[in-house]
Amino acid sequence: MSEKALTYLMESRDRLLQKLNEFLSIPSVSTDSVHKNDVRQAANFLETYLSEIGFENIKQLETKKHPIVYAEYTKAGPEAPTVLLYGHYDVQPVDPIELWDSDPFQPEIRDGRLYARGSSDDKGQVFMHLAVFEALMKTEGKLPLNVKVCLEGEEEIGSENLYSMLQEKKDLFQADFAVISDSGMVANNQPTILYGLKGFTGVEITVSGPDHDLHSGMYGGAVRNPIMALSHILASMKDVDEVVTIDGFYDGVEDLAEEERQLIKQVPSEDFVKATGITETVSEKGYTAKEHTMARPTLEINGIYGGYQGEGTKTIIPTSATAKITCRLVPGQDPDTIQQAIVSHVEKVAPKGVNVQVKKEKLSAKAYKVEPNHPLIQKAAESYTKAFGKEIVFVRMGGSIPVVEWIEDIYNMPIVLLGFGTPDDRLHSPNESFPLNSYDKGMETLVYYWNEVANR
Amino acid sequence: MSEKALTYLMESRDRLLQKLNEFLSIPSVSTDSVHKNDVRQAANFLETYLSEIGFENIKQLETKKHPIVYAEYTKAGPEAPTVLLYGHYDVQPVDPIELWDSDPFQPEIRDGRLYARGSSDDKGQVFMHLAVFEALMKTEGKLPLNVKVCLEGEEEIGSENLYSMLQEKKDLFQADFAVISDSGMVANNQPTILYGLKGFTGVEITVSGPDHDLHSGMYGGAVRNPIMALSHILASMKDVDEVVTIDGFYDGVEDLAEEERQLIKQVPSEDFVKATGITETVSEKGYTAKEHTMARPTLEINGIYGGYQGEGTKTIIPTSATAKITCRLVPGQDPDTIQQAIVSHVEKVAPKGVNVQVKKEKLSAKAYKVEPNHPLIQKAAESYTKAFGKEIVFVRMGGSIPVVEWIEDIYNMPIVLLGFGTPDDRLHSPNESFPLNSYDKGMETLVYYWNEVANR
Repeated sequence: MSEKALTYLMESRDRLLQKLNEFLSIPSVSTDSVHKNDVRQAANFLETYLSEIGFENIKQLETKKHPIVYAEYTKAGPEAPTVLLYGHYDVQPVDPIELWDSDPFQPEIRDGRLYARGSSDDKGQVFMHLAVFEALMKTEGKLPLNVKVCLEGEEEIGSENLYSMLQEKKDLFQADFAVISDSGMVANNQPTILYGLKGFTGVEITVSGPDHDLHSGMYGGAVRNPIMALSHILASMKDVDEVVTIDGFYDGVEDLAEEERQLIKQVPSEDFVKATGITETVSEKGYTAKEHTMARPTLEINGIYGGYQGEGTKTIIPTSATAKITCRLVPGQDPDTIQQAIVSHVEKVAPKGVNVQVKKEKLSAKAYKVEPNHPLIQKAAESYTKAFGKEIVFVRMGGSIPVVEWIEDIYNMPIVLLGFGTPDDRLHSPNESFPLNSYDKGMETLVYYWNEVANR
Repeated sequence: MSEKALTYLMESRDRLLQKLNEFLSIPSVSTDSVHKNDVRQAANFLETYLSEIGFENIKQLETKKHPIVYAEYTKAGPEAPTVLLYGHYDVQPVDPIELWDSDPFQPEIRDGRLYARGSSDDKGQVFMHLAVFEALMKTEGKLPLNVKVCLEGEEEIGSENLYSMLQEKKDLFQADFAVISDSGMVANNQPTILYGLKGFTGVEITVSGPDHDLHSGMYGGAVRNPIMALSHILASMKDVDEVVTIDGFYDGVEDLAEEERQLIKQVPSEDFVKATGITETVSEKGYTAKEHTMARPTLEINGIYGGYQGEGTKTIIPTSATAKITCRLVPGQDPDTIQQAIVSHVEKVAPKGVNVQVKKEKLSAKAYKVEPNHPLIQKAAESYTKAFGKEIVFVRMGGSIPVVEWIEDIYNMPIVLLGFGTPDDRLHSPNESFPLNSYDKGMETLVYYWNEVANR
């Protein structure tokens, strides 16, 4: 039953691209209050489109800032599965505007790519879903499964009101599984299943010594130096083999199975040295850099400061020093437990003569992972392969997507990340674009996927 | 022969204080070009005064910024010793001016202290010398020894041109010994011989990793974190017992003799905990805090920075991290050798995956120490005791006075530090003051000292 829908998409390609351009032309920059009405206009566009293609119970759920667009299709019947589809219609600001080769809100196709703010992140991918639903409705008269859409307008400003809305409207958003298309593939035309994301947690450590900066000649030798004390504390957290040496840090972390090492090996990885300008990669003892970034927890110092930072020399013992730390977590690690492990470690190693305070950062998330052989994932893999004509790769990513953790936390449903972006899309940067190859084959993938999933 | 001079000083006290106030009223702030003419005016004041009391060959040695006032008295004859007297007539800025209880350039006496910028550092102490010379000249018709004065106007901006001038005019400044009055006593009315100063040297360590800040999720696990690498390097330099763990750091440092430990024990030391607000003192294993600050070398991190320093969290691996380090050195340690030892240590411990650069700071100094039983020191001790009516204490100080090292370096002559300041003088701060007790008894000390030293 996919053939007709695919033919429809092909025949309607120009018209649908035109419609996408209309959507992309709305400057729905969520962070800028000047664009408040534009964000609303983008929500209205979605509301209209959803209505045109037969969705019901369409509404804009109001928040303190921008609305969440809700709509549902329930006519596939109680036997068919229900999917919760998440995406976002807000975009990043366009500054610095002078670095754009074309107007960010006047979409333009160049060299097989559609250039516009939001073309990849995430309006383009949201639109693909709606176009596929249109094609299925117009050719089959119905969708093969029930659908609930949740399209928010605040993703680029931290999804401030999404968590509470998901909690509050639990019945409304309830589904059998969730699909999110706000991620990418490891390379253009390389279908990719993202089956794991890291969680994260953070702390800020402040070592306080004297109540004012001291003359290093008068007091050096009597007073513990807060920067040296902080250095000792930090150095005790990770050894030169990049192994975290905090008691309990690896508790509950599952071993990396040989099978998964093979999966990781297959991923065409970026050249870390070339991409970052480092002299050579380093990674946790026993793991390759790819394994460590994708599947092993990390602890990074994100910033440090204390004492004199100007030109030349100032011979002081500073009053304090501060370091910011975040960890990326894998399944089996609980963010709160890890925070507490860091606190306990710091308390254990803090030298006398200084006060050490550890502030726990509020924002945290558990890791996400689905088994690569979960039926919903296997069907996704088959759909990708069929559309792109290329074997899929399975990847885990070091990054974190809060909404994934929230949906898992509140609904405990399987989540499938169907992303079609590519590493060259320049998300959040000037000249954001999306390859038409991803656009066409991504929609083909979705047509296959919905039919496969419904056909359980 | 001291009696007459002392009587003269007593009888002329009001007039001399008036004259000192005139000197202190000149805002000779060397760092501020607005005050360039004021600095010159202070030099002119000295020139006039030196001329009034019979000095000869008076001149202002021009430098790129402010002049060095030179004058000499040679009529004590070839048999009498010649002293080189160093002091400075420039002062620190007065900001924040609103914290002063009286105008910094309108001297005011309150509670036995003379409040004015420069009253202690160093115009007050320079003036005391000239007043004593005046008293000796007016009552004895001559000075008991030959004198060369070297009064600079750039001490508060790092004595930029002094070293080259001292080198260039080696014959002019040549003397048998030097006296410097730009230091203090350990407490008000506690005569103090400062017989040792620490030297210093410094380095700046920069650890560079990726060529831009990296997403910690995408690259954490593949890239060495520059802040963590720096922490490891710094932590390897000193252990928790405050012992420096750099190879060769203590080479050549003489043991602290039991005799000197006794001298140090006698020094009425300030309460480090109370003065600094720390929880407890820490010091090198085997040494008290007083011993460590006065007589043992130190290594302090003066500042550190790298990565994100703002509010909250930014999940990056930063491109670099930098730490500033200075060491205070004792006799037996060569600044260049210590710098090189740090460089070698860093090279040894620097982990792979990052670039580590060590910049050697240019300004450095060897430690200064005279034997407490040197005749010039013993005579100073006797003069102090006689004037203040109190047993002297001998101290070494953790601070450094570059001119001391320079005079030793160029002339290799004994240097006697006759300081009369007190810990409460608030040098460089609002409400700088100088106790009249130090003013009166300090001049008495100088009268005794010059007569004793001449009487060899």
